[in-house]
Amino acid sequence: MTTQEIKVYRDLMGANEEWAAKTRDLLAEKDIYMLNLIGSPGAGKTALLEGLGAQLGEKVRFAVLEGDVETTNDAVRIAKLGVPVSQLLSGGSCHLEAKMVHHALLDMDLDALDMVVVENVGNMVCPAEFDIGEHIKIAVLSIPEGDDKPQKYPLLFHESNAAILTKVDLLPHIPFDIEACKGHIKKINAQIPIFEVCALKGDGLAELIAWLSDRAGA
Amino acid sequence: MTTQEIKVYRDLMGANEEWAAKTRDLLAEKDIYMLNLIGSPGAGKTALLEGLGAQLGEKVRFAVLEGDVETTNDAVRIAKLGVPVSQLLSGGSCHLEAKMVHHALLDMDLDALDMVVVENVGNMVCPAEFDIGEHIKIAVLSIPEGDDKPQKYPLLFHESNAAILTKVDLLPHIPFDIEACKGHIKKINAQIPIFEVCALKGDGLAELIAWLSDRAGA
Repeated sequence: MTTQEIKVYRDLMGANEEWAAKTRDLLAEKDIYMLNLIGSPGAGKTALLEGLGAQLGEKVRFAVLEGDVETTNDAVRIAKLGVPVSQLLSGGSCHLEAKMVHHALLDMDLDALDMVVVENVGNMVCPAEFDIGEHIKIAVLSIPEGDDKPQKYPLLFHESNAAILTKVDLLPHIPFDIEACKGHIKKINAQIPIFEVCALKGDGLAELIAWLSDRAGA
Repeated sequence: MTTQEIKVYRDLMGANEEWAAKTRDLLAEKDIYMLNLIGSPGAGKTALLEGLGAQLGEKVRFAVLEGDVETTNDAVRIAKLGVPVSQLLSGGSCHLEAKMVHHALLDMDLDALDMVVVENVGNMVCPAEFDIGEHIKIAVLSIPEGDDKPQKYPLLFHESNAAILTKVDLLPHIPFDIEACKGHIKKINAQIPIFEVCALKGDGLAELIAWLSDRAGA
């Protein structure tokens, strides 16, 4: 399907804020918009990128940085889309740090990109606390996780500029009050848009693609 | 439903290992078996305890310590079962530390207990790294999270003495290869039992209750 060689980065030390600032400068220089996707393990972040892939790629030239504790599983999935991707391995850490992201960016062909999507390590707590130089954070919450999660993990929703509710096809099978959930999110962060998607079936992706393309200036 | 007053503990500082050792001594003195339940946000840890509640309570006198970043939602749910429960709030931290657990134990009527179940903060990474003085860790993984999660979060499965696959009623609606998942777990930790449950419908709980009762010496 693809012959792309997947670059793998391991943990590097350094002051996080400094590296985040360097990344902001680099992104400004190259006119690249960077997203930081944050959600639990299995929230459907990679499936979302697979769903967005082809259609988003028609509007915006984007690359993906896949954060994980272990394995290159997700980067292999993204590579199949023909999207440039590198795997960032946190080496046991629960979040991505700015330095690793910065070095991965330096190895990419930035002149050929409008947007970089960073999929952070699956975790609703720690990644929300670490600036990686992104323009915006996006909270990803899947229906099976339960409608109370914004209340229980408020920082993520407070720090995010959008929330994506994934796996909405499972609503008939799960006790989940979507209006209550949206109410919890709005109480923490009244302004942010909330998208409802099923990446496997394609539901709701068009609105999200339009919003992302707009943010990236496409 | 209940008039139980829910005690709330906030973050406390101190050397984790020392407090874990103190807790081990206390549990030995009181002949109490302590479990540390670890899994993602929304893996169904609280629903599992709700499902186990009445039947497990007939065999074992148990209490629950509910770990969360924010809210007493989960403790309120457990209190409805008539089970002694306290809420441990990590104050933004991604895991429970031993000192907070120890102090919550000291405030409980330990002579009336055979077992304490700690539900850790929803997170597959950090809680696996922090000893809270428990006898065993149990990994909780829900079907919607995906069959590759043991590969991506191997430490949790390596450190655990049992794995519980929750929400198995969703298998018909989700691409999830349960044999592949069990294979990933066995590759990391060949000895551990793997339970398959649907807490809402009661499937698989009897085997788990028998195993837990046996471990607690009931």
